[in-house]
Amino acid sequence: MNDNPTQQTIVSTLSAIVGETHVLTSPEETRPYCVEWRDLYFGVPAAVVRPASSEEVAAILRFANETGVSIVPQGGNTGLVGAQVPDESGREVVLTLERLKAIRDVDREGATLVAEAGVVLEEIQKAASEAGLFFPLSLGAQGSCRIGGNIATNAGGTGVLAYGNTRDLVLGLEVVMADGTIWNGLRRLRKDNTGYDLKQLFIGSEGTLGVITAASLRLFPAPKGRAVAFLAVEDPQTALTLFRRFSQTAGSALTGFELMPRLGIDFVLRHQEGTRDPLETPYPWYCLVEISSGRSEAEASELMETTLEAAFEAEEVLDGAPAASLAQAAEFWHIRHTMSEVQKKEGGSIKHDVSVPVAKIPEFLRRASAAVTEAVPGARPLPFGHLGDGNIHYNVSQPVGADRDEFLARWDEVNKIVHGIVGELSGSISAEHGIGRLKRKLLVEVKSEIEIDLMRRIKNAFDPNGIMNPGRML
Amino acid sequence: MNDNPTQQTIVSTLSAIVGETHVLTSPEETRPYCVEWRDLYFGVPAAVVRPASSEEVAAILRFANETGVSIVPQGGNTGLVGAQVPDESGREVVLTLERLKAIRDVDREGATLVAEAGVVLEEIQKAASEAGLFFPLSLGAQGSCRIGGNIATNAGGTGVLAYGNTRDLVLGLEVVMADGTIWNGLRRLRKDNTGYDLKQLFIGSEGTLGVITAASLRLFPAPKGRAVAFLAVEDPQTALTLFRRFSQTAGSALTGFELMPRLGIDFVLRHQEGTRDPLETPYPWYCLVEISSGRSEAEASELMETTLEAAFEAEEVLDGAPAASLAQAAEFWHIRHTMSEVQKKEGGSIKHDVSVPVAKIPEFLRRASAAVTEAVPGARPLPFGHLGDGNIHYNVSQPVGADRDEFLARWDEVNKIVHGIVGELSGSISAEHGIGRLKRKLLVEVKSEIEIDLMRRIKNAFDPNGIMNPGRML
Repeated sequence: MNDNPTQQTIVSTLSAIVGETHVLTSPEETRPYCVEWRDLYFGVPAAVVRPASSEEVAAILRFANETGVSIVPQGGNTGLVGAQVPDESGREVVLTLERLKAIRDVDREGATLVAEAGVVLEEIQKAASEAGLFFPLSLGAQGSCRIGGNIATNAGGTGVLAYGNTRDLVLGLEVVMADGTIWNGLRRLRKDNTGYDLKQLFIGSEGTLGVITAASLRLFPAPKGRAVAFLAVEDPQTALTLFRRFSQTAGSALTGFELMPRLGIDFVLRHQEGTRDPLETPYPWYCLVEISSGRSEAEASELMETTLEAAFEAEEVLDGAPAASLAQAAEFWHIRHTMSEVQKKEGGSIKHDVSVPVAKIPEFLRRASAAVTEAVPGARPLPFGHLGDGNIHYNVSQPVGADRDEFLARWDEVNKIVHGIVGELSGSISAEHGIGRLKRKLLVEVKSEIEIDLMRRIKNAFDPNGIMNPGRML
Repeated sequence: MNDNPTQQTIVSTLSAIVGETHVLTSPEETRPYCVEWRDLYFGVPAAVVRPASSEEVAAILRFANETGVSIVPQGGNTGLVGAQVPDESGREVVLTLERLKAIRDVDREGATLVAEAGVVLEEIQKAASEAGLFFPLSLGAQGSCRIGGNIATNAGGTGVLAYGNTRDLVLGLEVVMADGTIWNGLRRLRKDNTGYDLKQLFIGSEGTLGVITAASLRLFPAPKGRAVAFLAVEDPQTALTLFRRFSQTAGSALTGFELMPRLGIDFVLRHQEGTRDPLETPYPWYCLVEISSGRSEAEASELMETTLEAAFEAEEVLDGAPAASLAQAAEFWHIRHTMSEVQKKEGGSIKHDVSVPVAKIPEFLRRASAAVTEAVPGARPLPFGHLGDGNIHYNVSQPVGADRDEFLARWDEVNKIVHGIVGELSGSISAEHGIGRLKRKLLVEVKSEIEIDLMRRIKNAFDPNGIMNPGRML
């Protein structure tokens, strides 16, 4: 391995591979690839390179592997743990997959779709829909995140309850290994027991093992009817009871169950233009519930109605608005989907993305909020998310009027409090966002030595020169 | 590493760990662990060792790893590819998990169950049922196969259509690594993105990476009603049309769709006591269809009835028997479940366990049967299995009256014909049974060099001394 190629060598070599116009170096051009959208991470790259094919990706990695240049793969740059932005050394190359944007194939009969890594999630949803099918991955960033990044982070989102995580939607992968070898594992079978299931390693590996360049994905029958309701409840315990009621009556037809606190609604109404409160008066907590039917609109509505009726009778629901139209259903979901974004407008926000066994959610919320507000008086917990999966985004906004930086300086302290409670409840410190740079130090604290050791062995086996997203995750 | 400990050393060391009575060496005692039930593999072990805890497993592996003794892990000895029986060298130690048979925990609220590797699948089904829940893994050998083996082979079975493979049912694992370290990865979360998903490597690894000693499993709401029907169809193409009809109307309520040829029914009726033909006259092909409802018996029946009515009208179904009782439904399933076993009584059978994209099943069956009977006149193809998953057990029974050994000598030749067609249709040579010894040579033929290389890197990283089930899979 030659040590330290100069930036000039890096740029000229990359230019020879992808063409000069696709190697960016000026601060103006590279900035969009180097700033994380919540302003938590900012880096300075040696270059941003924009390959257009798996072969170009392979050539880039061969060069990097031979010369020891670090590669930071990037999809839509919507990641939440800093894995996709370069560090400040000026020595890392950001490899964006944005030009690998072909949907290579849609197989209606087999209900599969093959997309390149740079396809925006929403485009995949659309392509599936045009084929009369359904791709269930759905999350706030779907208009800009790219499927390669979704897979590299095993994205969760609002469809997990009924359809599973991204992992469950992937049938096969094409991956460029650290040494530039291309592995074509684009299978489309539901059953294939021929050796270790290698794709599983790359799913959720955050760019540390290779570069995902394409994927074959599972599509599903499109629901024929959906019913959405925005419901007010007294507290998380009641929300849990309500969730159980819906689970029992709707079974796998329950395709969404999200929990939101009043504060989140306030933030959205205040900062997101065109939104309005679905209910007339404020309530402490809300559930957004979605039921889908494979058979008819009527069946979904009926199931929603009868379940709601029983819930009102049992006094689990304080007030509720069933969506009267598709447009209204979309409005309700819009409130939920913008709840991450709007927090920025309220100053600093200390983030957690935790999961606990579903039944423990009320206890977790009670204990975490008490502990956090005791430690930081005036801090405003804004826990929201996927109650049905046991996954809560336990975010804490700064006290009104406090200094942003001063508040954010307490990040680790607040993390420690929240993650301590998560640990006691056998939960996870990263339910869906991953580790990246944000939780790298935490990882070694929460994992056993043997688990970290096994991870390192895999890393060394796949990327012996350590060029793939170093300093992220492991 | 000391070379070649004597059998005496092996036996005395193992005895010190598990007690003398749990180290078997006499041919009478070891035989049940060394014969594969279809008589395809028979081996001679240095010993069969029966540890009672993960710690004992760890001590055995430490010794094996230091001395280079090969370990063959075994569950219920129902595997179909020879991975679980020792070779004929007399130097391998069979490590049976049969004494690790505790169900450590059933969490009704969280819908999870933690079982040790040696628990028989049926026991897990029962424990789930007693908690008012449901464990969907279901296969012919469920009365004797053990959950550790199910996981090590990523077993499929008849529940895959609605619930996925064993992989999809596992939340966490406890594994003893080759060097005797115990990894406690018994998580119970639906979402956990903290590093590489290590458990995925062990699922389907056929004992080549470590010994699975316990697992946390997902349970599901118990279906409240089931409707089963035994339907006659003209050919696989019509069966596929019928499958699509049921998929469309029942969606995820379609929990079973199996294809069987007349020959299979004949074999069952001839060799399995107490079975009878569900229909009055014979037909060329049959579908066993199951619909489950999370809400009621009535809903399942109604859905079955209306779909069947439409199918009869469209002349897709020639004749049909909806099960009138739970007992009759069980009878229908019994026919399907014994279809593997009874083939033994008809002489030699050359096996394939293949998958192709679902839409390609009719073409596959047509081409395979033409090619096989041309090569071996009089051979009797008996293709049956999970049509909805694209997974067919393409078995071929010997011609009536032919010599068993002579027929079986053509195993590789017939394999080559069938797998060639599978390859042309982008299928898999092992959909659910795995590789083991049976398909080890095939594996390197159907996989790319880079994929085999990646698998070897993982093997070396986890089992550098190569003591874990050597000669199987890789």
